[in-house]
Amino acid sequence: MKRSVETIYGLHAVRALLLRRPERILRLRLAAGRDDPRIREVAELASRRGLPTERVAAREFEQLLGAAVHQGVMAEISVLPPWTENDLLAALAGAPHPLVLALDGVQDPHNLGACLRTADACGALALLVPKDRAAQLTPTVRKVAVGAAETTPLVAVTNLVRSLALLKHAGLWVVGADSQAKQRAQDVDLRTGTVLVLGGEGEGLRRLTRQSCDFLVRLPQLGAVESLNVSVAAGMLLYEAVRQRGTDPA
Amino acid sequence: MKRSVETIYGLHAVRALLLRRPERILRLRLAAGRDDPRIREVAELASRRGLPTERVAAREFEQLLGAAVHQGVMAEISVLPPWTENDLLAALAGAPHPLVLALDGVQDPHNLGACLRTADACGALALLVPKDRAAQLTPTVRKVAVGAAETTPLVAVTNLVRSLALLKHAGLWVVGADSQAKQRAQDVDLRTGTVLVLGGEGEGLRRLTRQSCDFLVRLPQLGAVESLNVSVAAGMLLYEAVRQRGTDPA
Repeated sequence: MKRSVETIYGLHAVRALLLRRPERILRLRLAAGRDDPRIREVAELASRRGLPTERVAAREFEQLLGAAVHQGVMAEISVLPPWTENDLLAALAGAPHPLVLALDGVQDPHNLGACLRTADACGALALLVPKDRAAQLTPTVRKVAVGAAETTPLVAVTNLVRSLALLKHAGLWVVGADSQAKQRAQDVDLRTGTVLVLGGEGEGLRRLTRQSCDFLVRLPQLGAVESLNVSVAAGMLLYEAVRQRGTDPA
Repeated sequence: MKRSVETIYGLHAVRALLLRRPERILRLRLAAGRDDPRIREVAELASRRGLPTERVAAREFEQLLGAAVHQGVMAEISVLPPWTENDLLAALAGAPHPLVLALDGVQDPHNLGACLRTADACGALALLVPKDRAAQLTPTVRKVAVGAAETTPLVAVTNLVRSLALLKHAGLWVVGADSQAKQRAQDVDLRTGTVLVLGGEGEGLRRLTRQSCDFLVRLPQLGAVESLNVSVAAGMLLYEAVRQRGTDPA
């Protein structure tokens, strides 16, 4: 069996993975001679999880990572395998109030990458996209997502409407963004298990997707411009969910 | 004197300009034979503002706009001239609780265009950028901003720190986004006159800019990824200001 490996680096990224998914770290290297408190914290987290750390010379970091801002921390991690719909449904069981992002036909890989990055930052469990007529996980998407593709799983499904029905059956509320909606995002309770659904570029939600939603909410649209960029709209909705949930405590 | 003219189209864009800046509309054309309530509303708004409307054949729309979704409405408008710092200071006087977005060294024209688009959608008075080492108003930016560059003025200034001091002197609070901040965006009152300041891609606020801020706030950063995309971060902060202000009433 072939196992794919990715390298991540930087204090924030490695620390987050140590806290959230230590089992995916295959090898952890710290720059020799660096002993500031944040490096020590990473070493301590690793030791508590039974992960050995290697100290390597700074020039080895440069050889492997070039001019990247590695902060003396680098980890080899097992690549996140793509999730199936079943993986997603299984993961819901272990997540108290899951937050899932679904994109209904986003075609631009930059938008998909930006959405992955924001979904990761806002603690979303996964990102759901249809298999057809939508951007998939390409190297461009991985690059724009600056590492989020290695931590937040993308679930490509055959039939988005059917998947939303399964998530609804699993107890999640389906909340779609629609410029014509009567309620604003802050008018709807996003604190329990929720799927946030956004339409593709310029087209909005498709009719059947809209009909799958328990709630439709609108985002600010006070100006001359018809719609928000989809990755900005996703950011606003995810921000609102995090704000309501207090997942980022004061 | 040469006067630059741009064409805008679509019910939403033309209606917004009729409501907010009717003086900039030079010529308004409606498709002959279309008489739905939304077209009638545009015609009525125009007549109330003393603007004559012309009825033209649908094929003229196609000749001028190609396959664009014009919805039977098209306006020629005077291009927004670039604002100077003085124009911005003068405009503050007429704005009850002005909201200004400032970007400290955003280099990517796509990010600048996306920020203009969101600033417009959230009712910001203007977008402030430094003249040096930062993206300026190019055709790419205008295109990404899908019309927002014609309604939300970009103010390029020689010294951003000095401009922030002037805005502060004019009574605005300066609120910067910083990943290390102790307060979250929702912990700070954004309801009165506010400048929201964001750093460039990956670099965050420069030291002097950070020192200019009355408040520093953080945005969700729960995942493995070091930072949010700057246009997504701007979207979250602008969303939070609109939410607190209730500018988009329920």
